[in-house]
Amino acid sequence: MTLIKKPVTGMKDILPDEMELRDYLIAIIKKTYRSYGFTPIKTPAAEHIGNLLSSQGGENEKLIFKILKRGEKLNLNNVDKELDLTDMGLRYDLTLPLARYFAANSSKLPMPFKALQIGSVFRADRPQKGRYRQFTQCDIDIIGDASEFAEIELLLAAASVLSKICPENKFFIRLNNREILKAMSEYAGFISDKLSDVFIILDKMDKIGLAGVQKELIESGCDEKSTSKYTGLLQKLSESKDISKTGDLLKKELEGFINEEVVDSFIFTSEIVNNCKSLDFDIVFDPSLVRGMGYYTGTVFEISMDGFSGSVAGGGRYDKMIGKFTGTDTPACGFSIGFERIIAILCDSGFKIPSLNEKTAFLYEKGIDRKILSDILREAEAERTDGKTVLVSSMNKNKKFQKEQLNKQGYTDFREFYREELKR
Amino acid sequence: MTLIKKPVTGMKDILPDEMELRDYLIAIIKKTYRSYGFTPIKTPAAEHIGNLLSSQGGENEKLIFKILKRGEKLNLNNVDKELDLTDMGLRYDLTLPLARYFAANSSKLPMPFKALQIGSVFRADRPQKGRYRQFTQCDIDIIGDASEFAEIELLLAAASVLSKICPENKFFIRLNNREILKAMSEYAGFISDKLSDVFIILDKMDKIGLAGVQKELIESGCDEKSTSKYTGLLQKLSESKDISKTGDLLKKELEGFINEEVVDSFIFTSEIVNNCKSLDFDIVFDPSLVRGMGYYTGTVFEISMDGFSGSVAGGGRYDKMIGKFTGTDTPACGFSIGFERIIAILCDSGFKIPSLNEKTAFLYEKGIDRKILSDILREAEAERTDGKTVLVSSMNKNKKFQKEQLNKQGYTDFREFYREELKR
Repeated sequence: MTLIKKPVTGMKDILPDEMELRDYLIAIIKKTYRSYGFTPIKTPAAEHIGNLLSSQGGENEKLIFKILKRGEKLNLNNVDKELDLTDMGLRYDLTLPLARYFAANSSKLPMPFKALQIGSVFRADRPQKGRYRQFTQCDIDIIGDASEFAEIELLLAAASVLSKICPENKFFIRLNNREILKAMSEYAGFISDKLSDVFIILDKMDKIGLAGVQKELIESGCDEKSTSKYTGLLQKLSESKDISKTGDLLKKELEGFINEEVVDSFIFTSEIVNNCKSLDFDIVFDPSLVRGMGYYTGTVFEISMDGFSGSVAGGGRYDKMIGKFTGTDTPACGFSIGFERIIAILCDSGFKIPSLNEKTAFLYEKGIDRKILSDILREAEAERTDGKTVLVSSMNKNKKFQKEQLNKQGYTDFREFYREELKR
Repeated sequence: MTLIKKPVTGMKDILPDEMELRDYLIAIIKKTYRSYGFTPIKTPAAEHIGNLLSSQGGENEKLIFKILKRGEKLNLNNVDKELDLTDMGLRYDLTLPLARYFAANSSKLPMPFKALQIGSVFRADRPQKGRYRQFTQCDIDIIGDASEFAEIELLLAAASVLSKICPENKFFIRLNNREILKAMSEYAGFISDKLSDVFIILDKMDKIGLAGVQKELIESGCDEKSTSKYTGLLQKLSESKDISKTGDLLKKELEGFINEEVVDSFIFTSEIVNNCKSLDFDIVFDPSLVRGMGYYTGTVFEISMDGFSGSVAGGGRYDKMIGKFTGTDTPACGFSIGFERIIAILCDSGFKIPSLNEKTAFLYEKGIDRKILSDILREAEAERTDGKTVLVSSMNKNKKFQKEQLNKQGYTDFREFYREELKR
C-alpha cells in the first residue's frame, strides 16, 4: 500500500524559502518584544475540552479539533453524543491557554506578568486560499495591570515590531473601547438584548459603510429613531479628527451613559502613544471597531497597513477571563500580530531576507581520496566557526546546472576539489 | 462554573526561565545546523491516520492521539471500532512527516535535501517524571545521498551542536549497522523469525550485561549453541578497541554473511569522523546498539555523554521509508537530538544562560505627569534601539522588594522617576 503524500486537509507543508522568512520574522519579533521586558512562555497545544467550550472563544468554539479519549475512558458501546468521546481539544487561540497558565502558575510569575507567546493554533475552518487549519499566532499580553499603561506598552511594542518587519508600509492604529460602544448603544436607545446584534452589524462598517449599517440595523428590528440617533453620532465622531476634541465630544454626547474617567483614560492612551512614537504611524479613534471575541471588556485596537485591507494586528483588554479560572478577576490586556497575514503580504511583495552571512559550497569529486575529504571537512568546519555557512557536497555530472541550483539557494562562492589534488 | 487550571494530563506549562533556556538552545542549534547547509522546514502537527499506523512508528503507534472526525464524516449511530471515528492523529515523531513532505514536495526541493526540523511531537505515554505527552524534537536529515557522506555530515554536525551546548561534558558516539546486526545473527545460526526478538534482547545490553543477554536469549527459545556463538562474537568485538582492527575482525568472522563493502563503508565513516573532529569526543563501534524503530536499514548511531545514562542523541539510515509514499526507494539518513533530555541535564546542573544584553528597569511613581511619562517611554524606546532591554513599570509601595524581584529576573540597573520631577 502506498501512503498519502499530501498533508491533511487544510494544513500546510512549509517549504524552505517560506520557513527562512518565518524564522527571520520570529527572530525580529522575539528580540523586539524581549527588549520591552516580555518573557517567552509555552502552553500545551491541547486544552481541556471544558475550558475550550466555556464561551470564551466565540465562533471559534465551533471549529475545535477534538481529541479522542483513550483506553478505558473511551467506551464505544455507549456513545450518545460527541462529547462522550473527547476530553480535550487543540487550542484555537493563545489567549485562553494563557489565562489558564496564569491561573495555574501565578505564584511563580512576576506581577505584572508580561508574556510573549508564539505558537500554532488550530481551527477547522473551511479550507480556502491563504487560510489554514493550523497557523501561527504571535501574542503579547500584560496581566495584572489595570491601568492604561498596559495598552500603551502593547501598542508601542507592536508598532515597533511592525515598523521593523515592514519598514516601507505606513500603518495606522485604530482604537475603540467596549464601554464606549455600550454607552453609544444605550445613548441611541437600543434595548440591551440587542447589544450583540448591533455590534455584529457595526463591525461591518468597513465593508458596507454607514448607510449599510443603518439599513441592516433597521432590518434586524431596531427602531428608526434610535438607529438614526446612533448613525448620527457615528457620523459626528468619524468627522472629528483631533483626538482630544473627540474626547470632549464623547463626554458631552454620552453624558449619563458613561463614566468620564473611561473617556479620559481612553484619550490619555491615544495621546501618550501619539507623543511617544518615534515611528511614522497614525493613531485614530474608530467608533465602528468592535472585534469579534466576546471576552473583551475595555479598550480594543487594531493595526491596519496602507495598501492592505483588513488588519495586520489586533487585541484588547479582557479583565474577566482569568477570574473564570481563579474566581477572582485579574486585569489583562493582549495584542496579537497577524503573523500569517504578514507572511502573505511579504511573500506577495517579493520581499527578500537580508543575507546575513556568506554561503560557500565545497564541491568534491566522487571517489576522492579519504585524506583529501578529511581535509575538506576540516576546512569547512573551520570556516563555519568563523560564522560562514559551508555546504559540502559531491559534484554532479552537470556541474554547471548544480551550481545554478545552489546559486538559487544563496550559495555565491564555490570551491572545487578533484580526485587528483592538483587539478583544482 | 470555574474552569480547570492545570494543563491536560501529561502536558506541561513552560515557565519563563525554562523557556529562556529553550530559546537559547534552539538558537544555537539552528545557527549551527544552518552553517552546514541544513534548511529549516515545517510539517503540520497532524497526519493522516493511515500514514501514522503504517508500521513505520513501532511502539509509538500505540501512543497516537487521534483526532475526532468532523461534520458529516462523524457518524455516531454506526460506531463499530475506534478507527470509524478518526481520520487523522497528532504526529509521534518528525521522521514520518518528513518522508511524506519529501514525497509531496520533492520537485521543489534541492537534491540531496538537507532538512532541519524543530517541533512538537505527541505521545500518549504513561505520565512520569521528566517524560511529557508533548515534547520538542530536533532533527536533521539528509535525503537523496546513498553514500556514507550523509552519515559523516550528520555526525559532525550533531557533535558540533552538542559541543556548543554542553562544552563541559565529554561525549562519545556509538555506531552500529543493521546489516552487521543481521549478519551477526545469521552467523550465530539464529532462525530469521527470531531476529526481532534477538534485537530487543541485545538492546538491553547496557542494563543487563552480556550474561543477562545470554540468559534472556536462551529463555526466549534460542538454542544454546547459537547463543554462545553469538555472545562469543559480541565479547570479541567489545574487546577490540581499534576501529580498523574491528573492521578486519568483522570481515573475517562474518565472511559469507555480509558484503565486505558494508564493513568497509562503516569503518570509513568512523575513521573520517574521527579524523575530522576538532572536538573532544570518542567514536566507538557498539555491537549491541540496535535502536528501537523498525525503519532503520543501515547505520545506526547514538551519542552518550559522560555522567549521564542513556543517550542524548540518536539516529540512523532509513532507505525504505520514502518509497512507501512514492513507490521508489530514496536513500535517507537522520539524526535527532534529545532536546528534552538536554534541557533536563542543563536544568539539573544549574546551567546559567550567558547574559546577552544589559537589562534596565525604569520605575515610575503612579500618577506621574503625562509629560514625564512620555519622556520616560521615549527614553526607553531609544535605549531599546541600542540593543538594551528596558522594562518600564510603575513603582510598588514596597520598592525594595520590587527591586529584589526584578533582580531575580536579571534587571541589574534601576532608574526611578517621581511625580515631582526633581525628586529622583
